[in-house]
Amino acid sequence: MGSTGMRQLALDAKNAANITAALSTKIKDELLLRVAEVLEKEQETLIAANRLDLEAARAKAMAPAMLDRLTLTPKRVAEMAQSLREVAALPDPVGAMERTWVRPNGLRVSRMRIPLGVIGIIYEARPNVTSDAAALCLKSGNAVILRGGSEALRSNTAIGALFQRELKALGIPAAALQVLPNADRQWVLEMLKMDDCIDLIIPRGGEGLIRFVTENSTVPVLKHYKGVCHTFVDASADLEMAENLCINAKVQRPGVCNAMETLLVHRACADRFIPHMAAVFAAHGVELRGCPTACALSETIKPATEEDWDKEYLDLILAVRVVDNIEAAMEHIRLHGSDHTEVIVTNDYVNAQRFVREVNSSTVLVNASSRFADGHQLGLGAEIGISTTKLHAYGPMGLEDLTARKFVVYGNGQVRE
Amino acid sequence: MGSTGMRQLALDAKNAANITAALSTKIKDELLLRVAEVLEKEQETLIAANRLDLEAARAKAMAPAMLDRLTLTPKRVAEMAQSLREVAALPDPVGAMERTWVRPNGLRVSRMRIPLGVIGIIYEARPNVTSDAAALCLKSGNAVILRGGSEALRSNTAIGALFQRELKALGIPAAALQVLPNADRQWVLEMLKMDDCIDLIIPRGGEGLIRFVTENSTVPVLKHYKGVCHTFVDASADLEMAENLCINAKVQRPGVCNAMETLLVHRACADRFIPHMAAVFAAHGVELRGCPTACALSETIKPATEEDWDKEYLDLILAVRVVDNIEAAMEHIRLHGSDHTEVIVTNDYVNAQRFVREVNSSTVLVNASSRFADGHQLGLGAEIGISTTKLHAYGPMGLEDLTARKFVVYGNGQVRE
Repeated sequence: MGSTGMRQLALDAKNAANITAALSTKIKDELLLRVAEVLEKEQETLIAANRLDLEAARAKAMAPAMLDRLTLTPKRVAEMAQSLREVAALPDPVGAMERTWVRPNGLRVSRMRIPLGVIGIIYEARPNVTSDAAALCLKSGNAVILRGGSEALRSNTAIGALFQRELKALGIPAAALQVLPNADRQWVLEMLKMDDCIDLIIPRGGEGLIRFVTENSTVPVLKHYKGVCHTFVDASADLEMAENLCINAKVQRPGVCNAMETLLVHRACADRFIPHMAAVFAAHGVELRGCPTACALSETIKPATEEDWDKEYLDLILAVRVVDNIEAAMEHIRLHGSDHTEVIVTNDYVNAQRFVREVNSSTVLVNASSRFADGHQLGLGAEIGISTTKLHAYGPMGLEDLTARKFVVYGNGQVRE
Repeated sequence: MGSTGMRQLALDAKNAANITAALSTKIKDELLLRVAEVLEKEQETLIAANRLDLEAARAKAMAPAMLDRLTLTPKRVAEMAQSLREVAALPDPVGAMERTWVRPNGLRVSRMRIPLGVIGIIYEARPNVTSDAAALCLKSGNAVILRGGSEALRSNTAIGALFQRELKALGIPAAALQVLPNADRQWVLEMLKMDDCIDLIIPRGGEGLIRFVTENSTVPVLKHYKGVCHTFVDASADLEMAENLCINAKVQRPGVCNAMETLLVHRACADRFIPHMAAVFAAHGVELRGCPTACALSETIKPATEEDWDKEYLDLILAVRVVDNIEAAMEHIRLHGSDHTEVIVTNDYVNAQRFVREVNSSTVLVNASSRFADGHQLGLGAEIGISTTKLHAYGPMGLEDLTARKFVVYGNGQVRE
């Protein structure tokens, strides 16, 4: 196959996208519900394919955490099916018109949501992404090309085959969902250059993957590199609330992008808050790295280096800095933040409003844990990823972010003068 | 200067963008009104600078149409000032929150509009674009880098200098608006690679310019290549209305992107409509190129070649094709359209709805002239350009399209479980 293979696959996707764009909500939901059913009914097929992936991965001495992510169990397959049912239950964004306005000449103008076309998803070794991402792309009327990690190729192919069988059963071209049939990196490189067929690439995974995609793609890319999320405890903060928010943001799930990586504490409450928190964090097994002022307040805090302020630890490590005021906190965020998520804990109205207005990260929270920066938690119904670049989408992305809006104009013979 | 010069200019713009993002509406409007006033008061300075550009252009034997575009007159300066006043009167998109929803745990979630950051505008020899584009970028809280055609360098520099003087007078960094100080193409190439400083590039001009920018930019680009706009006259159309719409769409201003380039006529009304329209178009000096069926209906229609269906004539030339039904019309548009603007003239409810739903060009109109595909005409208040790519913006772009939306979350101590 080689070069011609990828080209044909993308052209097939483009043709299929013309069909999926016009599908009724009813058919799209039926498709997702049918796939949910066969995923559960034929879970043995999936788990058998997954077993081959796991054997190969073990032979290559894959790390246990990676092996765990790769593994499909009856419970995980049931969760994939459940996700499909949840996406089926979401409102269809296609065709929605939020507002109609009338021009002085009587033209009625509005904007209608339409699918983007063909979406490419490039991800690492989590087979559930195959099913979750496919569901969101199809529900929003797009065709989708999936390229998972090579370690999960057999699992992903098996999941894709179930989708394609149900697509065909409903008279929809199977090319509406395609899993790349091999792990050839050359295919990915070609895919990233097919801006005449593919409308959007969403990479999901580590910083290396994201960088590779961004640097090689002529197709628009929605992505985030990392989440260096800050919590600023203001002078007026309720310190008990601040403690709860900080523990939740750091400890509940330290390996994810919306976990807190840096704690900024106003000088006025530092001597009350930091020694207490040093003990609480120690009890949770969190290593603290602080500025000199913070270190002077607790012996358990190690000195931070300049690099610590830019680190996404994804681990039980936290950088701590004492700041003179809200301006210094916002300046620190501007210099070291990653446009992902920032929190202020405060009871001061003016500071809450300033933080919300002046910090332009993709999610800004007042008196709530950074862990809420998530499509489900914010009420988008589902999440296809998070964007930290401002064009098209910024922050957690849901179904609507997989659509565009065209202008629709109803007239009765108007001409321009 | 050279390479370092462009880099420094972009870094200055990025720093200025932090200031412009937080400016109040009052200051931004005052800036635009002050510039409007000095444009008129010091029009002699502008016209003198423009005279030097015109002399150089004449010495290079620039075509009369181009010379006309380049020329500044007291009337044109007054129009530029008027545009600034109109932008000042528009609502400020920055800070707007359209909707707030409440999560079951009490979190109040909304999305706030924020500026994109630094916007680069690359355009050809129309000095008024300098002032119009700058006003829209500044009103939406962005910093702007302007690169006009080399023929207009002295005029653009003079306009930029007036803006910078008023920026400084209001305590805003002059780097919020910068005109590239030379016509070195190398600077443009460098500008297009500065994705760490520049958030968006908008090229405005001919297809060659747009292609050059798209092929060389690592910064996101919003653009349209061409407008091959269609009008489909359905079997049930009111033929008098169809005549008015067609004449307006083709003749009122043939050189613009939303003028009609191809007329599609339903077979059922072709023998009544086409011979009559052939005479009317002839009276307006329009040359017709048709399919064999159309040619058979009027001797004044010349045979079209296959290339005619993809042409943006920008001239008094029109391609005419007879189609069997609405499906054939939509298929023609899918194969030959440019995602710009399409019109259906019909009195059939089902066909109107199908056309609106299934034709995914950026502007779709029922019973109205294609010439309405324009930011002012559709009520956006102003237009920074038109996008025919679906990411971020699709169709005419106004102030809102120069912004992004961040998530804002108000809580009272919520943590994630």
